[in-house]
Amino acid sequence: MIGGGQGAFIGGVHRIAAQIDGMYELVCGAFSSNPEKSKASGELLGLAPDRVYTSYKELFAQEQQLPEEERVQVISIVTPNHVHFEPAKLALESGFDVILDKPMTFSLEEALALRKVVEQTGKLFCLTHTYTGYPMVKEARQIVASGKLGKIRKVYVEYPQGWLSTFKEGIENKDLKQASWRTDPSQSGIAGAMGDIGTHAFNLAEYVSGLEVTKLCADINIVVEGRQLDDDGAVLLKFDNGASGVLFATQIAAGEENNIKVRVYGEHAGLEWQQADANSLQLKWLDQPTEIYRTGGIYTSSYAQHNTRTPAGHPEGYLEAFANLYRNFALCVQAREAGEQPKPEWLDFPGMEEGVRGMAFIEQVIASGKSDKKWTDFTTKTI
Amino acid sequence: MIGGGQGAFIGGVHRIAAQIDGMYELVCGAFSSNPEKSKASGELLGLAPDRVYTSYKELFAQEQQLPEEERVQVISIVTPNHVHFEPAKLALESGFDVILDKPMTFSLEEALALRKVVEQTGKLFCLTHTYTGYPMVKEARQIVASGKLGKIRKVYVEYPQGWLSTFKEGIENKDLKQASWRTDPSQSGIAGAMGDIGTHAFNLAEYVSGLEVTKLCADINIVVEGRQLDDDGAVLLKFDNGASGVLFATQIAAGEENNIKVRVYGEHAGLEWQQADANSLQLKWLDQPTEIYRTGGIYTSSYAQHNTRTPAGHPEGYLEAFANLYRNFALCVQAREAGEQPKPEWLDFPGMEEGVRGMAFIEQVIASGKSDKKWTDFTTKTI
Amino acid sequence: MIGGGQGAFIGGVHRIAAQIDGMYELVCGAFSSNPEKSKASGELLGLAPDRVYTSYKELFAQEQQLPEEERVQVISIVTPNHVHFEPAKLALESGFDVILDKPMTFSLEEALALRKVVEQTGKLFCLTHTYTGYPMVKEARQIVASGKLGKIRKVYVEYPQGWLSTFKEGIENKDLKQASWRTDPSQSGIAGAMGDIGTHAFNLAEYVSGLEVTKLCADINIVVEGRQLDDDGAVLLKFDNGASGVLFATQIAAGEENNIKVRVYGEHAGLEWQQADANSLQLKWLDQPTEIYRTGGIYTSSYAQHNTRTPAGHPEGYLEAFANLYRNFALCVQAREAGEQPKPEWLDFPGMEEGVRGMAFIEQVIASGKSDKKWTDFTTKTI
Amino acid sequence: MIGGGQGAFIGGVHRIAAQIDGMYELVCGAFSSNPEKSKASGELLGLAPDRVYTSYKELFAQEQQLPEEERVQVISIVTPNHVHFEPAKLALESGFDVILDKPMTFSLEEALALRKVVEQTGKLFCLTHTYTGYPMVKEARQIVASGKLGKIRKVYVEYPQGWLSTFKEGIENKDLKQASWRTDPSQSGIAGAMGDIGTHAFNLAEYVSGLEVTKLCADINIVVEGRQLDDDGAVLLKFDNGASGVLFATQIAAGEENNIKVRVYGEHAGLEWQQADANSLQLKWLDQPTEIYRTGGIYTSSYAQHNTRTPAGHPEGYLEAFANLYRNFALCVQAREAGEQPKPEWLDFPGMEEGVRGMAFIEQVIASGKSDKKWTDFTTKTI
Repeated sequence: MIGGGQGAFIGGVHRIAAQIDGMYELVCGAFSSNPEKSKASGELLGLAPDRVYTSYKELFAQEQQLPEEERVQVISIVTPNHVHFEPAKLALESGFDVILDKPMTFSLEEALALRKVVEQTGKLFCLTHTYTGYPMVKEARQIVASGKLGKIRKVYVEYPQGWLSTFKEGIENKDLKQASWRTDPSQSGIAGAMGDIGTHAFNLAEYVSGLEVTKLCADINIVVEGRQLDDDGAVLLKFDNGASGVLFATQIAAGEENNIKVRVYGEHAGLEWQQADANSLQLKWLDQPTEIYRTGGIYTSSYAQHNTRTPAGHPEGYLEAFANLYRNFALCVQAREAGEQPKPEWLDFPGMEEGVRGMAFIEQVIASGKSDKKWTDFTTKTI
Repeated sequence: MIGGGQGAFIGGVHRIAAQIDGMYELVCGAFSSNPEKSKASGELLGLAPDRVYTSYKELFAQEQQLPEEERVQVISIVTPNHVHFEPAKLALESGFDVILDKPMTFSLEEALALRKVVEQTGKLFCLTHTYTGYPMVKEARQIVASGKLGKIRKVYVEYPQGWLSTFKEGIENKDLKQASWRTDPSQSGIAGAMGDIGTHAFNLAEYVSGLEVTKLCADINIVVEGRQLDDDGAVLLKFDNGASGVLFATQIAAGEENNIKVRVYGEHAGLEWQQADANSLQLKWLDQPTEIYRTGGIYTSSYAQHNTRTPAGHPEGYLEAFANLYRNFALCVQAREAGEQPKPEWLDFPGMEEGVRGMAFIEQVIASGKSDKKWTDFTTKTI
Repeated sequence: MIGGGQGAFIGGVHRIAAQIDGMYELVCGAFSSNPEKSKASGELLGLAPDRVYTSYKELFAQEQQLPEEERVQVISIVTPNHVHFEPAKLALESGFDVILDKPMTFSLEEALALRKVVEQTGKLFCLTHTYTGYPMVKEARQIVASGKLGKIRKVYVEYPQGWLSTFKEGIENKDLKQASWRTDPSQSGIAGAMGDIGTHAFNLAEYVSGLEVTKLCADINIVVEGRQLDDDGAVLLKFDNGASGVLFATQIAAGEENNIKVRVYGEHAGLEWQQADANSLQLKWLDQPTEIYRTGGIYTSSYAQHNTRTPAGHPEGYLEAFANLYRNFALCVQAREAGEQPKPEWLDFPGMEEGVRGMAFIEQVIASGKSDKKWTDFTTKTI
Repeated sequence: MIGGGQGAFIGGVHRIAAQIDGMYELVCGAFSSNPEKSKASGELLGLAPDRVYTSYKELFAQEQQLPEEERVQVISIVTPNHVHFEPAKLALESGFDVILDKPMTFSLEEALALRKVVEQTGKLFCLTHTYTGYPMVKEARQIVASGKLGKIRKVYVEYPQGWLSTFKEGIENKDLKQASWRTDPSQSGIAGAMGDIGTHAFNLAEYVSGLEVTKLCADINIVVEGRQLDDDGAVLLKFDNGASGVLFATQIAAGEENNIKVRVYGEHAGLEWQQADANSLQLKWLDQPTEIYRTGGIYTSSYAQHNTRTPAGHPEGYLEAFANLYRNFALCVQAREAGEQPKPEWLDFPGMEEGVRGMAFIEQVIASGKSDKKWTDFTTKTI
């Protein structure tokens, strides 16, 4: 693990996600750019001291020396955005499979470069767009793909949070460590809310609908005085099949927690999923009663069932969704080691394409926000 | 009553709304431009045959001849949009108070003209933006006005319907009478969904937030093949205090019923109301538990309580909300007759200003939909 | 109308329920045993002074003198329980149809006597068990009757309120008028909560399930110090087909409003309805997604549709449910006048059998509460 | 781990619960009474072959021989009920701490005997009443304990399931392994549903209310033909402070998943929690808006926060609740090893007293079900 020392939120989440199914063992780490902190974090996590490193470069170099059966196999990178590209590239080139926190890189240019590295090395790569790990999100995608809704006409996706409603930057407080880097352009990149949560919303919309955004029109705002990056935005969308959509993501909706929600409407029916009721998926029909699909339902698809651990009625949450990414990744690694074909259900985790599109979203949504023109074309090429 | 013959949806709703509190008696009507139909409707409603008229002109002329204690006092106009302005103008000029279904007129120009008539005649005028009649919508407005939320930063309003997901125009079917005129430019005006339900959403956003829209950027679509007017749209909004917002209204969200919903966020808290759970209002705090305000709660404002008929836990719905408009209008008429000052709670019904702004919304949202420019200024002046 | 003067809750509700559909006109009343109050109430309601009476006896006697076309047809009795039997009996014997508030009488003995009067006079009789007027309650009954659930095995019904959590009796306060008589044995009868709301729960359970209770085992409590009648109770039930059930009703569940709820389970599926979400009915299947039936859904039964006034998504509430009783009663009266057969949907309102069973429930649930024996047989015969 | 071989539901849950926080390592097991199956399960779980045993006796004997730093510390017992007492007793006597699945034993007599063993050995003991591990259940208990609700008056607890609606016993099917032993008196004991889920409901009611049941009156049923043990029951309760309650648990409520729910009402307010919305706790006030407490809310108690892994809005579910039991147990084991005092939040897991009361509940609820007497005294003494 690269990053994720004490005080970091997402590092702990990655560790739990990896441990839940007993398919990963944490064997080494470079948890902080500060050697003291890295050592302390490693000790707390019960690692052998000689496998707690002071930099990712050291980690890759040393681990490569170890015999194969001892050597780390999968590298999780959970650093702030500006420290994604270099360690990911080096990890892949050093022969490791990589799990990387989103957004993928600092810029679209880096994203395209990283894509080449993955192509060249042939290593496995996962980008942790957690929400696609929920069984009912997978079910939603399968239902759309099955054609039940008919041609898709409209997509609404929203991600309201309230935790940045006040100015927290620079306040010395362990709990606010995230607030600081996420609102700092030198660590986060050109986007704040749009990068942090807008990319999740964008990814969820494309994942469930099976469509690709082709144009967007954005209203991007810095609401809280003194903030340097956007903390709020709304985007009109056009998709490749002619459908339209609305995306909004905000971190200044006071009182909102983390309720990402997606709605997709076709000719015959619509569906709705939201994280606050993560184990339900509503399928709304033009002329029949609404149906509620539930995690664990015996009528659900193989994709939903494969990503469910308990019978219906035992709520599965965010950590299980995250763990599904780790588990599917591990299953694919194991299949490769065994020389076997991974099942389609295992391959269903977000990777490089999602990463490139996410970085393109960040660049173009910010550009659109600054433009007087209504529509900005969406492209995954750099200009 | 002008319009509202057999097969019309909204005419029946107006009648129920008027009857609930026993403050109105239906005494005369011109229910249809077809004399036969008008007679038949009048008979069905138990009216004296000599007070069922074949045109609104005849109605106003004849009723003016009657002694004051027999003569109709308040005229309800529930015709399609293209027959709003003329009867409303004539009714006001003939000395009657007027309740008019929304959207107010066929064009902003007519709206401005009608405003002058109201100013000149001094008669009372109500525009039936029903949703502002809900006790919890009134509570929401009062909470925002009280300053509890702090400065308002963000407004989301949505109005998804699915009933126009298929092409119903021209089908000979009593139940589809509404579909036909609402999608016909010669009866409905330049807008379809934006006029029918977009104006409700716009009005609700301004009513609850207490803000005024100053700019908008619209994506307006005709989704169902063959349709002549928009059946879907999404709009980015800017408000006069610097806040921003998102409005969407659609009639092709298959499986959606009629769930208008508004969310308003300030510095300290946000609130959320939706028609599907009309008797609850969520007040979400940055650092305290969310509070659920309920219709009938003894802690609610005088505005909410005045518009509630039963103790908490007895659901009040759409018809009661509609009836609140009628009741408050009647209370104001009675106060005027009695030479008394109406209470502020009675005056809280939508009128001419809401009507003018609604017509401006229709014109500018359609203009913005056709424009390549991102932002269109919102103005209630005709160009 | 007998009773329902100023300060009474249920009188106003009856009036609204009667007015909503324009099928009733309030023509006379004896609103209070206090002549001054009765006059004042009548004036407020806009009645002709000569048709506001000082007693029900006077009302029946005078109205009988009037020509048939002027004379009142239907008598609504909304007095406290101890003044139900005498006016109802006299009204029926005087040739009027009767709508009576529940519980039907002061004792089972009176109930059985009143049944005879109805049988002898052949007049129409309605007992206002409001909750059976909800479209989704009617749908629930139809679904059970259709056999979709298979044999019914379990029924849960609950009615939690909190408004009697504190001792309010005897406090001089218009708003508490209800608290006073409902907790006074000389006006209410032998039961408090069990009579006031337990009978509603009992009726709802039998109405939806189509079953009849055969045995019960009750725990009846007076929770608030100083109170004279039960304010809380729970009852184990046995039904005539072998199913079992649980009923609870309480008025001391602090914070609860009025959320009556019923669940019925059969071999293949279960259904759930609650007043707090009155326009939804959940149908839960063993091996398929749960279905949500909605008021106004085009797939609903003729019973649900007949009792619905607006399209799906326009919430209908308590007053509309109440009005459905009045409307169906009026349709049956009209049919009789016209010498026509009423439709089955019109006949679906609670009447004498429900009243007798309700009174039997009161007597036996109180008896069971005092008994050391587990099961008490349910009978509609007096001992 | 004792039991929990392939095909067992609860064994896998225990393993995940132990792994989530990285505080446990699975080092040895006796997974099945069938040596082949035990080996196969151990291999699948990646255990060293020499630490997969063919019986718990062998496991304890062998592990005791190992040096302390290698030896297993905590024994999880996840066998069917009839194989709880002997291995638990032997484990404790062999010097191991024990985590035992509920219900604790086969009979109250065994429970009392096991209590003595715990007292004599001084080892740590946890009984996995999972639902008490939810942060919002802990919050509920803290709120009641704080006195905010005033004196408790009423407790409702329910646990509806539908999975035993059909006769599944004896069907050869891995998925139905649970159905078979849970409905078999020789493995499950004298109770079916009452032991399997009734005990959870009973425990939850006592845990949240802080009260103890003193009397009960039960209606216990075998609904599905051919079944040998109860699959349904409802119980009237009396508590030690004079409050009363209702408990029901059923496995034949077709269409219900696993929605355990508890409601507790005091003089001033009531609270409600249900597993289907596990991250919310409703606090309902007599005269203020209802408050929604949420997992991760910064206003929650130290007990809730200690048992929460992610910020508000990241749903935590059943596995996390289960893991909280394991984590708190581990923290107490670590504290003991370190010679430190465990924090009160760590000690808040179910143990021996809960186990004894649960077994007493089973015995007395079944006895009451067979009795003609209304009330049966609750006692933790054997007769």
